[in-house]
Amino acid sequence: MESNLTGRLLLVGTGPGAANLTAPAAIEALHEADLLIGYGLYIDLLDPDLSAKNRLDFELGQETERCRAALDHAAKGQTVALVCSGDSGIYAMGALVFELVDKEQRPEWLALDIVSVPGITAMQTLSNRVGAPMGHDFCAISMSDLLTPWDTIVQRLEGAALGDFVVGFYNPVSKKRDWQLNFARDLLLKHRSADTPVIIGRNLGRDGETVTVLTLGELEAANVDMFCVVIVGSSQSQTIEIAGTPRVYTPRGYAKKNVEEWS
Amino acid sequence: MESNLTGRLLLVGTGPGAANLTAPAAIEALHEADLLIGYGLYIDLLDPDLSAKNRLDFELGQETERCRAALDHAAKGQTVALVCSGDSGIYAMGALVFELVDKEQRPEWLALDIVSVPGITAMQTLSNRVGAPMGHDFCAISMSDLLTPWDTIVQRLEGAALGDFVVGFYNPVSKKRDWQLNFARDLLLKHRSADTPVIIGRNLGRDGETVTVLTLGELEAANVDMFCVVIVGSSQSQTIEIAGTPRVYTPRGYAKKNVEEWS
Repeated sequence: MESNLTGRLLLVGTGPGAANLTAPAAIEALHEADLLIGYGLYIDLLDPDLSAKNRLDFELGQETERCRAALDHAAKGQTVALVCSGDSGIYAMGALVFELVDKEQRPEWLALDIVSVPGITAMQTLSNRVGAPMGHDFCAISMSDLLTPWDTIVQRLEGAALGDFVVGFYNPVSKKRDWQLNFARDLLLKHRSADTPVIIGRNLGRDGETVTVLTLGELEAANVDMFCVVIVGSSQSQTIEIAGTPRVYTPRGYAKKNVEEWS
Repeated sequence: MESNLTGRLLLVGTGPGAANLTAPAAIEALHEADLLIGYGLYIDLLDPDLSAKNRLDFELGQETERCRAALDHAAKGQTVALVCSGDSGIYAMGALVFELVDKEQRPEWLALDIVSVPGITAMQTLSNRVGAPMGHDFCAISMSDLLTPWDTIVQRLEGAALGDFVVGFYNPVSKKRDWQLNFARDLLLKHRSADTPVIIGRNLGRDGETVTVLTLGELEAANVDMFCVVIVGSSQSQTIEIAGTPRVYTPRGYAKKNVEEWS
């Protein structure tokens, strides 16, 4: 990881929140950095030794400022870690960093050594908690219309329905968005049955984590909030009770093919 | 993780191969197990101390036998770790374990404590190597028709095209499958431009790793093999050269919305 460039920007995904689900490479990157930019509380939980590092905190909503600050401090020759939960490249700061560099074309940003360290996502965490609902082809859709026009989100939902993908919904509901998840449910119900498994994960990897298994017919936006990730199974997904707990999986074998052909 | 059930089955995803991308929880699970089932070589690379553990190895293709052995040994009261690369719930053994329990309904399997530990996937690893191509809605499609009818795969491709998803292709090509990836390219080319960014990752997280950035118009199955994962950008994905290296990202902001609205 040696470099003779002006500075380095490390885009670090720390996973769902539990320290034992953070890759050692992410912890190494945080120790290597001169400056950490992210939510202080999450960083302290990962490794108390990081509390001595220089920090910059920003409010929620100040994503552009946070990315600009990371690029500017790195351009001064520092090694800067921009810290994201989950994976920095999945609904997080990674894409915004590259977008800023691309749009503004500042020579000092275009010379940076930008390195990303992957992290376990909320969707994967939920999938593993409940079984293997993402065992066959899946997609991820953010229901946030803050940056994406609603028509684009509907187009995604139609693609997911046509393709019979397992669907992971990020930002399924917010205080201002209370009907969109029900719209998505109704659209999917035109293509898959009401007993399709649905999993709601809340506060994944954090205190108070809950995982609820229900059906697509039972899904109600009123029972979901901004701390949730929702996975909707494909037409092939199944629920099975094992040791008293509902588990969900999506088999790879389809229709005419069956499990015996694995052998 | 205490349990008074008959036995425990740990489904452990070890990530892409590099030990510093394996979650500590996965290493803990391997140490906790009485028996490790998986590829011995990969396990040794993760932690040499695991070499003293009881092992069961199976040939590639013996997936059903491997899962049955894991279930049976756990049913005898052992703690068994079934080891997968990537995430055990994503194109790996996790779903097959649950499918076997569901289809066979053996009481000793239905009583097991089955716990999964998530791992970083090949697709995420590739995404982080090149930038943030999965920065907005994405899907994953396996091109293997071993267990999935070709018609189903085509349906997925059409859904991905309609939804304008970033697409991660698993098993893009094999010795017996040499034209399907070109079919997928041609189908996507009806919906997105020939200069859409494409990334080919080979031997991700292993010795000899390569990452190649090209365009959808340039994608040829002849240049891809079974050791590759391929990511095709959406209509919004961009390539930018930073510090002499091509980087790819997919912005969250769309069309009428722009980067300024983040602030």
